[in-house]
Amino acid sequence: MPEYSVVGQRLSRVDALDKVTGKARYSADINLPDMLHGKVLRSPYAHARVLRLDVSRARALAGVMAVITATDASGDQLAKEKAIFAGQPLAAVAAISPDIAEEALDLITVDYEELTPVIDVLEAIKPKAPLIHPNLYTESQTGKTTTPSNISYHIEFKRGDVEAGFREADVVLENTFRTQTVNHGYLEPRAAVAAIDLEGKITVWTGSQGIFAARAQIASFLNLPLSRIRVVPVEVGGGFGGKNTLLLAPLCALLAQKTGRPVKMVMTREEDLSASRVAPASVITLKMGATREGYLTAVSATFIYDDGAFPQRLPSAQGGSINGLGPYRIPNLKIDGYDVVTNKLPSVAYRAPATPQAAFAVESQLDLLAQALGMDPLQFRIRNAVEEGDLMPNDVPFPRIGFKETLEKMAKYLEQRGKPEGKNRGRGVACGLWRGGTGSSATHVNMNADGSAVLIVGSVDLTGSRTSLAQMVAEEFGIPFKAVTVVSGDTETAPYSDISAGSRTTHQMGSAVYQACQDVKAQLTRLAIPRLGVEGVLPGDIEFTQGCVRIKEMPEKFVSLADLARQSIGSSGEGPITGRGSVRVAQPAPMFAVQAADVEVDRETGKVKILSYVAAQDVGLAVNPTLVEGQMQGAIAQGIGWALMENYIFQKGVMQNATFLDYRLPTAVDLPFMATILVEVGSAAGPYGVRGVGEPPIVPTLAAIANAIDNAVGIRLKELPITPEALFWALREQEKSK
Amino acid sequence: MPEYSVVGQRLSRVDALDKVTGKARYSADINLPDMLHGKVLRSPYAHARVLRLDVSRARALAGVMAVITATDASGDQLAKEKAIFAGQPLAAVAAISPDIAEEALDLITVDYEELTPVIDVLEAIKPKAPLIHPNLYTESQTGKTTTPSNISYHIEFKRGDVEAGFREADVVLENTFRTQTVNHGYLEPRAAVAAIDLEGKITVWTGSQGIFAARAQIASFLNLPLSRIRVVPVEVGGGFGGKNTLLLAPLCALLAQKTGRPVKMVMTREEDLSASRVAPASVITLKMGATREGYLTAVSATFIYDDGAFPQRLPSAQGGSINGLGPYRIPNLKIDGYDVVTNKLPSVAYRAPATPQAAFAVESQLDLLAQALGMDPLQFRIRNAVEEGDLMPNDVPFPRIGFKETLEKMAKYLEQRGKPEGKNRGRGVACGLWRGGTGSSATHVNMNADGSAVLIVGSVDLTGSRTSLAQMVAEEFGIPFKAVTVVSGDTETAPYSDISAGSRTTHQMGSAVYQACQDVKAQLTRLAIPRLGVEGVLPGDIEFTQGCVRIKEMPEKFVSLADLARQSIGSSGEGPITGRGSVRVAQPAPMFAVQAADVEVDRETGKVKILSYVAAQDVGLAVNPTLVEGQMQGAIAQGIGWALMENYIFQKGVMQNATFLDYRLPTAVDLPFMATILVEVGSAAGPYGVRGVGEPPIVPTLAAIANAIDNAVGIRLKELPITPEALFWALREQEKSK
Repeated sequence: MPEYSVVGQRLSRVDALDKVTGKARYSADINLPDMLHGKVLRSPYAHARVLRLDVSRARALAGVMAVITATDASGDQLAKEKAIFAGQPLAAVAAISPDIAEEALDLITVDYEELTPVIDVLEAIKPKAPLIHPNLYTESQTGKTTTPSNISYHIEFKRGDVEAGFREADVVLENTFRTQTVNHGYLEPRAAVAAIDLEGKITVWTGSQGIFAARAQIASFLNLPLSRIRVVPVEVGGGFGGKNTLLLAPLCALLAQKTGRPVKMVMTREEDLSASRVAPASVITLKMGATREGYLTAVSATFIYDDGAFPQRLPSAQGGSINGLGPYRIPNLKIDGYDVVTNKLPSVAYRAPATPQAAFAVESQLDLLAQALGMDPLQFRIRNAVEEGDLMPNDVPFPRIGFKETLEKMAKYLEQRGKPEGKNRGRGVACGLWRGGTGSSATHVNMNADGSAVLIVGSVDLTGSRTSLAQMVAEEFGIPFKAVTVVSGDTETAPYSDISAGSRTTHQMGSAVYQACQDVKAQLTRLAIPRLGVEGVLPGDIEFTQGCVRIKEMPEKFVSLADLARQSIGSSGEGPITGRGSVRVAQPAPMFAVQAADVEVDRETGKVKILSYVAAQDVGLAVNPTLVEGQMQGAIAQGIGWALMENYIFQKGVMQNATFLDYRLPTAVDLPFMATILVEVGSAAGPYGVRGVGEPPIVPTLAAIANAIDNAVGIRLKELPITPEALFWALREQEKSK
Repeated sequence: MPEYSVVGQRLSRVDALDKVTGKARYSADINLPDMLHGKVLRSPYAHARVLRLDVSRARALAGVMAVITATDASGDQLAKEKAIFAGQPLAAVAAISPDIAEEALDLITVDYEELTPVIDVLEAIKPKAPLIHPNLYTESQTGKTTTPSNISYHIEFKRGDVEAGFREADVVLENTFRTQTVNHGYLEPRAAVAAIDLEGKITVWTGSQGIFAARAQIASFLNLPLSRIRVVPVEVGGGFGGKNTLLLAPLCALLAQKTGRPVKMVMTREEDLSASRVAPASVITLKMGATREGYLTAVSATFIYDDGAFPQRLPSAQGGSINGLGPYRIPNLKIDGYDVVTNKLPSVAYRAPATPQAAFAVESQLDLLAQALGMDPLQFRIRNAVEEGDLMPNDVPFPRIGFKETLEKMAKYLEQRGKPEGKNRGRGVACGLWRGGTGSSATHVNMNADGSAVLIVGSVDLTGSRTSLAQMVAEEFGIPFKAVTVVSGDTETAPYSDISAGSRTTHQMGSAVYQACQDVKAQLTRLAIPRLGVEGVLPGDIEFTQGCVRIKEMPEKFVSLADLARQSIGSSGEGPITGRGSVRVAQPAPMFAVQAADVEVDRETGKVKILSYVAAQDVGLAVNPTLVEGQMQGAIAQGIGWALMENYIFQKGVMQNATFLDYRLPTAVDLPFMATILVEVGSAAGPYGVRGVGEPPIVPTLAAIANAIDNAVGIRLKELPITPEALFWALREQEKSK
């Protein structure tokens, strides 16, 4: 591996000081003169016809400046004839204070006719189920059905002969696994501020995962050209996929447009939990066969995802099934995946969308197969692990990947560590694949007259990407990290970037940054060569180190970047040095995670204590190992919550536990020490071989915990969350059956 | 000339609505939480030794957060041992209110020892004159002198044999002309706001003519790297060269650094008039000979500029003499130019720096020669006017220029109009050359997904350049003007640009914009060609019109920019479309102005009434004729002030008339109707042939007025301003001598 000087360093995040001191500016921190406050009226019913919506009394309230309803805008931000989930917005109010806005909501009269809500995903797919969207037809690889249905997508993957595969198997098991609706649990509830200028141009500050996607959503809602909206980045207090979708900002922009004044909207935590967006619940049935040598022969699977009230933009079942079964060689397979709408909160992407659910099923099932075969579960996975050239379930071959290396590092680590000793203790391992998201990214890099550099990106920084991208610039130019300023541009000062999602930012914006740096280096090289005082120097002979352009073989022949930058703008120059990079990464670099949990089960209470946790991951190259480890640990924390605690409790489709007291997230006391093992099998697609980092580490966690519990107390729970109560009753059953 | 659709249109300025409604944000409009207010202590003496400077009582005043003196910084922003002009800063205070800051100034004790001030520029150059800067040596083309002197520059130009030239002449005249110190007269007094973040990085908002130059000045004063300073553009209420030099911003940044809090500083009008910067006074002696056929044979000239307390960055005498004598073919010449320091306010650039003064002398002298020869003054100028290939006084040949065309258009206009009729009425003509400034400019252009575009510039918009640059983008892409958003980036979001000065912005940033557009168009063309459905289409076959890329010969074969932009970021794209342009224009396009004033003199009072005014100018191509005409008319207004009213009245070097009541600027009632004639002789250097516009029209005005007065009443005044009083006494002399 090449030696890098800034890439690979554990540097502090550029936003660290602002964040730890509270100076960082989030949407809700924006205050403008004459600002109004907006509030949203939401449906109390999961499924109801709206017979009458009368906002006249609210409009008449002193201090109310505007009330908007579905008739004021396009798109489905506001319900019109029918509410299809509890919490769906029907109207929004802008008033001179939050209290008056709240009061105005009470003055809006809505007459509802309650309709039967479709709650259970297995009921929803029945042919006679009430239809949530009368014009929703099932999309599949072969087209659309002609009969409306609650199934939005049907995905099919086939390979080989599944029945023949099962006949070859020595063991065949079939099981159904269930996960529940969970929340992203970001720290910062949704918020937005919008202002309008004299020419009707609207500026929006909102914590989103993509300023350009935000601009497009707002423009489409308001029916305005893109050039009439400017979205300014603010710090984002967690997104995890949830903030790809804007909920408040379009309403806020419309209220600003209606009133001509700035408007701020901030969700309460209760609103954000009960009325925003969630990750889909799932029901996954797997039939899998293996030989006694431990080779998988066939898989037949059904993946059903509960997408809530709106079809997802991308089918959950597609991503979930490919990622869930992708890590293994499966000669014969038949997958049916269904995305289903119900009268519950709409699902959106949540960290490795649809994949932790799938991996919970697949990795639990693999453990059961290993048990049946009497094999070590990790060795069983190693035996079936995919390598470069193997096919994913959708028959796309893997490029260079580091799955085997990651499995082997984990095996070695666990061997050195030894098994957890003691009663009711056990270890679970699980694996996870995240294929990675694709997208477009562009950037500009400018050289200052003193040889320092500025990097301008329009990608949102969720996980430290500003820092890692700045490290790349410093690396390329051979200048100190502190000499690179990284700017989060807005939709007008930065070139386009797709959303920060799919673990793509450092990997793909990184490629654009690398390209922009090469553009700048070519310009500097052209200026430098005549100044080096050596005949016949070619660009390939040049290197950038210690703030200078040097001849590689004659490091005493150099000229400083500062000199060249000054020259470029001086009388003998050709113009300021500025570079651009622009990429579309269509084939991302797949990422693998392997994790092991050691747990202890309290047989009295059913409570699971996680004794220790270890996570290995192929990150290609860790640009900033501290930030990589932080993402891994954060993902595991979320996975532990999903496995053991988090759950939406619905009654007639209405969430009943919309506080962080009742919707339990793991806290510091729930979390173990998490060891991290960084595997660096360079990807061909990323600069320096980097792969994405953020999503893979949540994928195996759910199953690793379930597998560890089974290993500890011999109880296999196939439904999440494995709350103390659930485990308590299972332990009672176990005692009884002894 | 090619047909353009957006370039050449009279479009409203993009900043028009904000400016007419008062929404535009100037430095003094910036208010930040916890902001302090800064004030400056200034020397009351033009020349004095500082024996003691005691700030302890000021520091001790409640509410004072910092007091800075010369020992806190580098550079000459604060006087140390000696004050060399009245108004020179000695200390600055930051306090919680402007009143407390003012009170603190009173508590600072300074003991001065008064020194003899050097006021008169002709005294200053005498060998025995007191030295203002003991280490100032005279720079000339051949090096530096070894004896210190008050002469900072000595410029010499020689050609042919001057004595022989005078012998060939039929008429030889020698005269000395004088102009006084004048002010830029911008509407917005100087102001700055500075804030510092937790990492010590300083952000500055100040109305300057160049954000990057501002950053460099502040960084140098604070001894910080460029990357530790961010300068954010605000609207500028007039600069005219004065705001190339920052006075408050460095002090403000230092006070922010000392206090850790934001600091605002705003000059009063009195402060700005009496203690900031001015245009130099001049004493110019010209000996000129011509044949009776009206051909100039020789010029011997001395140009002396009074630069005030600091040497100018560029010698006034150099620019003044080249521009002043540049319009004419002079076979034999000998020019000596001197820049001299005195204990008066420092001079800086003021609209066509040093040139109106020179043109006042040259163009007055030409009228006197024409009179002596009995020739029409305009025809005399036409006879001697330079053309492409002719040499400037510094022997640089002119590129393609439109001087003759401009003279001829003026001659035709005046012929059609007829002479002013009536007693005491007369007409004066004069010409002006501005060679143009050079500099570096870069820009980025991004394409939005709907085919609209964003232009990012770091050049300061003083005269409507955002609008004219946006017109170029709309022209290049064949999209409506409204579809172009132009952003004034800050020193981090925009690539480098030199100052907006030298009439270079539309011309040179225009070249960068044009280049960036070609970069974008090449990317769009590459995407478009395969989509046009025609074999063998080459980039040269493509044109951009009506929001589409078309085949020139088959306009029905097209694809929209919106489609291409969407494609670029979609799954079949290659990345977002973004372009860069970067230029260094070393050879600007010289600009010529020809003006005629019709005046009437009131023999009772000496008051001059300007009956009408006509200005012709070769602008290459008027990107926005309304904005071009506005600049021409604004310059003439300033020239009229200079000719008839404006004057610094000094007593022992201290300005005595520091208000707009006592320092008279022309108001609307003083100004005539000004007709404008745009001549469009395209320059090879600018996009669309554009030349600069802002500076040439002030160059001839001073002389045109003086020549008109002479033509009206037969009185030749060789010193400005020609106040009613001056003319009154001259008229009395004239009566007496009759």
